[in-house]
Amino acid sequence: MKTLTVQLGKRSYPIYIGNHLLENAGLILQHAPTKQLLIVTNDTIAPLYLGTLLGTLAGARTETVILPDGEQYKNLETMNRIYNVLLEKRFDRHCTLIALGGGVIGDMTGFAAATYQRGVNFIQVPTTLLAQVDSSVGGKTGVNHPLGKNMIGAFYQPLSVIADTNTLNTLDDRELSAGIAEVIKYGLIRDSGFFSWLESNMDRLLNRDPDCLAYAIERSCRNKAEVVATDELEAGERALLNLGHTFGHAIEAGMGYGSWLHGEAVAAGMVMAAQLSTAHGWLDPATLDRIVALIAKAKLPVKGPAGMSMQQYLGLMSVDKKVKAGKINLVLLKHLGEAIVCDDYNPALLDAVLKQHCD
Amino acid sequence: MKTLTVQLGKRSYPIYIGNHLLENAGLILQHAPTKQLLIVTNDTIAPLYLGTLLGTLAGARTETVILPDGEQYKNLETMNRIYNVLLEKRFDRHCTLIALGGGVIGDMTGFAAATYQRGVNFIQVPTTLLAQVDSSVGGKTGVNHPLGKNMIGAFYQPLSVIADTNTLNTLDDRELSAGIAEVIKYGLIRDSGFFSWLESNMDRLLNRDPDCLAYAIERSCRNKAEVVATDELEAGERALLNLGHTFGHAIEAGMGYGSWLHGEAVAAGMVMAAQLSTAHGWLDPATLDRIVALIAKAKLPVKGPAGMSMQQYLGLMSVDKKVKAGKINLVLLKHLGEAIVCDDYNPALLDAVLKQHCD
Repeated sequence: MKTLTVQLGKRSYPIYIGNHLLENAGLILQHAPTKQLLIVTNDTIAPLYLGTLLGTLAGARTETVILPDGEQYKNLETMNRIYNVLLEKRFDRHCTLIALGGGVIGDMTGFAAATYQRGVNFIQVPTTLLAQVDSSVGGKTGVNHPLGKNMIGAFYQPLSVIADTNTLNTLDDRELSAGIAEVIKYGLIRDSGFFSWLESNMDRLLNRDPDCLAYAIERSCRNKAEVVATDELEAGERALLNLGHTFGHAIEAGMGYGSWLHGEAVAAGMVMAAQLSTAHGWLDPATLDRIVALIAKAKLPVKGPAGMSMQQYLGLMSVDKKVKAGKINLVLLKHLGEAIVCDDYNPALLDAVLKQHCD
Repeated sequence: MKTLTVQLGKRSYPIYIGNHLLENAGLILQHAPTKQLLIVTNDTIAPLYLGTLLGTLAGARTETVILPDGEQYKNLETMNRIYNVLLEKRFDRHCTLIALGGGVIGDMTGFAAATYQRGVNFIQVPTTLLAQVDSSVGGKTGVNHPLGKNMIGAFYQPLSVIADTNTLNTLDDRELSAGIAEVIKYGLIRDSGFFSWLESNMDRLLNRDPDCLAYAIERSCRNKAEVVATDELEAGERALLNLGHTFGHAIEAGMGYGSWLHGEAVAAGMVMAAQLSTAHGWLDPATLDRIVALIAKAKLPVKGPAGMSMQQYLGLMSVDKKVKAGKINLVLLKHLGEAIVCDDYNPALLDAVLKQHCD
């Protein structure tokens, strides 16, 4: 088992990465100050891992909420199901919520923990690659609104993140690739050595080589933890983690939540960001080719979905959280491994890049 | 104008108390980093003060949401109306929300600010005595759930609190008395000198003597600011501010939100707490009589509503946030001006006190 720490002063917390951690009661319960626990999971994960986790936590007073699986359920109505159980079962403010699932479960459980009785404890137990390398770390929680993704939420840190790599064995190939999109992102924005490693090891990753997966998760979490420690509330550097996300959120909203996976939309969005960076003369065309090739090798889309118009992209991008005073801020690449937040790009070049993805 | 500060390190903020502050653009806008503003108010306050405030903020880009007035609308559905306007009008995360109204508007606007795009700026402009002396200060935000009051929410501090005493002139007598309940509370829990002052000045307060009101607001805010600075997240001392509230929340929920005013329910709850304290031999009967007399003099109820049973009280009290490991924590009085959080009271004495209020 590997242990990393997200350094946030009094709110610092450990990330554990290893095999069969779901069966480690001591590891999970050390961060649950009382033994009143609510496991929040979904109907895909519950048949696979809920029994194991309930067995591990047999000594505690544990309740369960099983939500429908999918980004389209990440909303306030679904949140209310969590609140209902907490209140019906009389959970007090010393209780602990456990998120067992992917990014959607983690974001909703975290937001429920942030807002139940003005804040209770929570533990992330991510079961997808995307959640293990990205969404479970750093305290971003929330739900979608029909007018924009993740528009309602809070920064709220977990007490620990427990990434059991064993759970990745049941992940379908499409979900695995979606997680790899965020792994590639760390290479692009701040770790070019990792990008090169990914070029050499993509086949092994796709074949779920355990050592290879564990290494990619650890190196991704280390990158994320460093960024979050520097800028918890996204006043600066943390925004770089959104490479491809403003484009990607537009794709997710435009196609209807749940149609494209988040990682797929981010993959196409990273291609758009890299193309726009190249159009400005920052990234050289050979590097752009390497980026597109690696994303394609990961079996991820390198082109936006059919049927979206440029106007639709621009409209949806302008409600993203990265907007300031009406200007869409974009994360672009100065070089491989170096990203910037930029609002002085050439809008005509943005239009041209989007048009390539709209035919 | 008086200025106090709530000392919370980087999140410290001023409370301004004075006449005609709603017309002071500089005072309000100094804490709005961009000029993108949303005023949230209700249909009682809007005809009275919205025009004035909009005139004051004429240079800014200002939108307005007018919610229905009443505790029964303090829920997630009403919150969604605030989110809708923010998203439809493309408010970004550098915007500022202004709560113009009483406690319900302040709590909901604060929670919307805490959760829109994971947190935006907000300013409290309380227009009721209760909001000016209590709810606008200290960062408690949230909404009710059918199963319990203020169960969904966050701690989220405003950038400033602007208490315009002029707005109290339009408050009806019942609302004025409800605010005085929280004023009396500070005397009971930590400021016996203030309690004596209130005994001497209650008639002037009820007659809305401006100097008398300003003094009561300032002294109340000073008490509250001191407590909040010591214990922002209610790990200890801040819980003492809940004197009468566990009983009061049961009354509000039992009668249906909006039937009894919060301050009225707290007043009856403070009588119950004082009676239970006396039953334990902590408070002497003569002091209990003074407390009941002052609450009655303020035209507040000293008895619970007709029609509630002891079982109903106990059931509703057990979902309050002050519950820990199944035990109802109560705030009780050791002496006049000295409160404690207590879970080792005699349950039989609690039953006896509740029974007196149930016939």
